Amino acid sequence: MKDERTVPARTATQVKIADAAIRVIAQRGFDVVSVRSVAQQSGLSAGTVQYHYRTRQDLLLAALERSVARQAERIRTVGRVESYRESMALTLRELLPLDGVRYEDAAVWVSYGAAAATRDWLAGPYWSGMRLFHDGVRETLERARADGRLREGLTPETAAPLVTALVNGLTLDHLNAPARVRVEVEAALDRGLRLILRD
Amino acid sequence: MKDERTVPARTATQVKIADAAIRVIAQRGFDVVSVRSVAQQSGLSAGTVQYHYRTRQDLLLAALERSVARQAERIRTVGRVESYRESMALTLRELLPLDGVRYEDAAVWVSYGAAAATRDWLAGPYWSGMRLFHDGVRETLERARADGRLREGLTPETAAPLVTALVNGLTLDHLNAPARVRVEVEAALDRGLRLILRD
Repeated sequence: MKDERTVPARTATQVKIADAAIRVIAQRGFDVVSVRSVAQQSGLSAGTVQYHYRTRQDLLLAALERSVARQAERIRTVGRVESYRESMALTLRELLPLDGVRYEDAAVWVSYGAAAATRDWLAGPYWSGMRLFHDGVRETLERARADGRLREGLTPETAAPLVTALVNGLTLDHLNAPARVRVEVEAALDRGLRLILRD
Repeated sequence: MKDERTVPARTATQVKIADAAIRVIAQRGFDVVSVRSVAQQSGLSAGTVQYHYRTRQDLLLAALERSVARQAERIRTVGRVESYRESMALTLRELLPLDGVRYEDAAVWVSYGAAAATRDWLAGPYWSGMRLFHDGVRETLERARADGRLREGLTPETAAPLVTALVNGLTLDHLNAPARVRVEVEAALDRGLRLILRD
């Protein structure tokens, strides 16, 4: 029988553990994640954490998978409006380091981006999250093009990497920005999207 | 007399140590940096490293300062061409994770972006590097506007954060990209700059 432990966060306890790992990363850093620190953060025993995620590596993979799933879930439930640009802005705002879980998921994304550069076991999962995001953007841009809303000279294929770079760049730039600068991040997202989509 | 140790990399030995710390970060990760790992990488003794940078924190600050200085130096010496857009593309290419020192400095930038989120002593120096980059971009955009090359609806103040986000986003997105995707990063930079500057 296949051993099902160390799989992504799926049961309520696994989700609770993965959420705690995300909080440890956002508040104290990627290198602080351990069975012990995540147990403390979640209020569960180290034994329970270790039953579900046997190693630090398992915990880190579960946290990434959970963070990407949280972002995808927020995006799915965001309200839609008439304009492609405004819909896209509402959606992508969920990925910016604004507050609460949005800040946590943004911090996770940048932390794993850095960590994946020197850890082969993370590079694949990180790239999968990146592709998921990229493909979602490209699908929206395809619908926008069909409706004549994509700016001249752009295609969904050439514009999608610009949208992902805009969001990821604003995330990296504003994660450590002073509060007076961080409030400008939503306006910058809107401004960037106006270069790509017309109303 | 003021103790001048633990200052940024200024003598040939200090530069050698800081370059070695950068290489450790790019090849093995931010959390591997220590007096010992940097001594091994540089070929100097641990005593020599510790004479110049007494703590891990001093080493990490010196590596960031040196990496930003290396990028600024490359940008200063890059060739200029007639078009603002092409000049800016040539310049900003030096910040992308392309090869050799460019990859190293890009990896350092993303690693410190992640680390600064949970380390107060890094947040200030990281933000200074960010402002240096942002202000350089804004100055170029001011000259471009004076020559009527900035796209309608944009000002140097609103466009500069979009340029920095484009470069930092492409850096984060491509640091871990498979080789077949990474080759597209320069074309994406050019395409993004075309939305902001006209020829």
